Amino acid sequence: MMLRSVHLPLGFGVSPLLRCLPRFSGLASCSWSRISSSPEGLPLDVPYSRQHGVFRAFRMSSGGPGTSPDVDAALGSAVALPAIQMPKICFCHSCGNPTKQVIPDGEKKIRPVCVVCGKIHYQNPKMVVGCLVEHNDKVLLCKRKIEPSYGLWTLPAGFLEIGESAAEGAARETLEEACAEVEVLAPFAQLDIPRIGQSYIIFRARLKTPHFSPGPESLKCALFALDDIPFDSLAFSSIIVTLKMYIEDTKSGNLKFHYCTINKRPGASPSDPRGFDVDQCLHS
Amino acid sequence: MMLRSVHLPLGFGVSPLLRCLPRFSGLASCSWSRISSSPEGLPLDVPYSRQHGVFRAFRMSSGGPGTSPDVDAALGSAVALPAIQMPKICFCHSCGNPTKQVIPDGEKKIRPVCVVCGKIHYQNPKMVVGCLVEHNDKVLLCKRKIEPSYGLWTLPAGFLEIGESAAEGAARETLEEACAEVEVLAPFAQLDIPRIGQSYIIFRARLKTPHFSPGPESLKCALFALDDIPFDSLAFSSIIVTLKMYIEDTKSGNLKFHYCTINKRPGASPSDPRGFDVDQCLHS
Repeated sequence: MMLRSVHLPLGFGVSPLLRCLPRFSGLASCSWSRISSSPEGLPLDVPYSRQHGVFRAFRMSSGGPGTSPDVDAALGSAVALPAIQMPKICFCHSCGNPTKQVIPDGEKKIRPVCVVCGKIHYQNPKMVVGCLVEHNDKVLLCKRKIEPSYGLWTLPAGFLEIGESAAEGAARETLEEACAEVEVLAPFAQLDIPRIGQSYIIFRARLKTPHFSPGPESLKCALFALDDIPFDSLAFSSIIVTLKMYIEDTKSGNLKFHYCTINKRPGASPSDPRGFDVDQCLHS
Repeated sequence: MMLRSVHLPLGFGVSPLLRCLPRFSGLASCSWSRISSSPEGLPLDVPYSRQHGVFRAFRMSSGGPGTSPDVDAALGSAVALPAIQMPKICFCHSCGNPTKQVIPDGEKKIRPVCVVCGKIHYQNPKMVVGCLVEHNDKVLLCKRKIEPSYGLWTLPAGFLEIGESAAEGAARETLEEACAEVEVLAPFAQLDIPRIGQSYIIFRARLKTPHFSPGPESLKCALFALDDIPFDSLAFSSIIVTLKMYIEDTKSGNLKFHYCTINKRPGASPSDPRGFDVDQCLHS
């Protein structure tokens, strides 16, 4: 079944954290936010150890341990940034010569192009893969032992690596963060965050054995009944949205695959958990 | 509804092009192919204009026009290649100094790391987004005007750009390749191709007006009834799989969201349209 552009009824007796606008009806009419004042996580290739030094304003890295996707909660000071930030490619990674920002022949967008060998350096969004692990009507959450969002709860998730499938990557992240071996059951959600060049792919999964324990990036791991999920202490907007959709589906007895985008709301404080919109809501 | 690890009944009176193995049951037991002898498309940042010159063996680029995802059909000579190819990052794009291949502290994998500034250069899979456009019980296909797979049919699809959602990217590609304005209706499939570091995200869509015409990358565009789809002239394995699943769902009256991986079969010729397996089959 397909329902498009609908309001997500994600309240469940708590103040609605999400506001879903029926914005999307194709290329011409779609509308989404590009906020310039938010320090929301950036798709920068900055290793964690440097996030607290020179690059403190850039809270996102691109796949290493100690790095994290979707950094829009638990943030500190706001930093004025361009609408969409990308890691700056100043030098060609093939020949080491400088790049310049030009529109290549036959293209429409400005790209970094090597001034010597002519190589065009394309930059594309990254996939974040994770598991929503079900066990005895509860779900597995991990309390983060790393910044950003230290001490807040999340689903086990991380950047997809070259050479693995999304399902394999989600299972790997669950093993790394919760020491839990899981069987991936079904795709559950894709949540795009265009502002930071990320796309979350979340799978439902089950524990192969009833064992889990915190990995190096987690303070602790625990199973939560759906009514006990700590929505005020979740690490990322993507996790809030995923869990709200999962609760809704579970209570209605109709588990679907969800696609949506998460966009920071204009003027919202970066630490405001209500400061985002869920747009382009579609499902299977 | 969830069905995992099942055989996809994708015959429809033609020789089965797909063989689906029920391989996936989680991290420990999953199995997938890494083929070293196939020239299947590589996730290299090689602009199209150079694919026929110095880099002819590398048939894949990463997002520019004239480039293409999933190159495993219509290929010429086989070239011996490592199991998983990535663009070689020889120089740091931040400071231009050389990189070395090392395992960074706290990590498990070899990464290119700058010998001067210490920057770690992560490499992640790329998302390919496209539309399965429905119109009067037909679907829209584009005949490729560019290599690879010149003259073969495909769904409009291309690399997702930074700053756009997958649905927006899919609509953009449809506008570029078929001059068709579409409304995206529902997510339909995710098809990972780990060997080449790509993940296809395909949406069902409808024409906003009944107009389309070939864009710069297409020889022509046409609507095909499901029984008339030219399976012997499709450009990519991902398109074969998507259309087979769509036909199956449409004829059963049960449109679902599908997740699967596409893996080249060991020993298969790169030009063999039956030379791949569809694994990790899951759906919503």
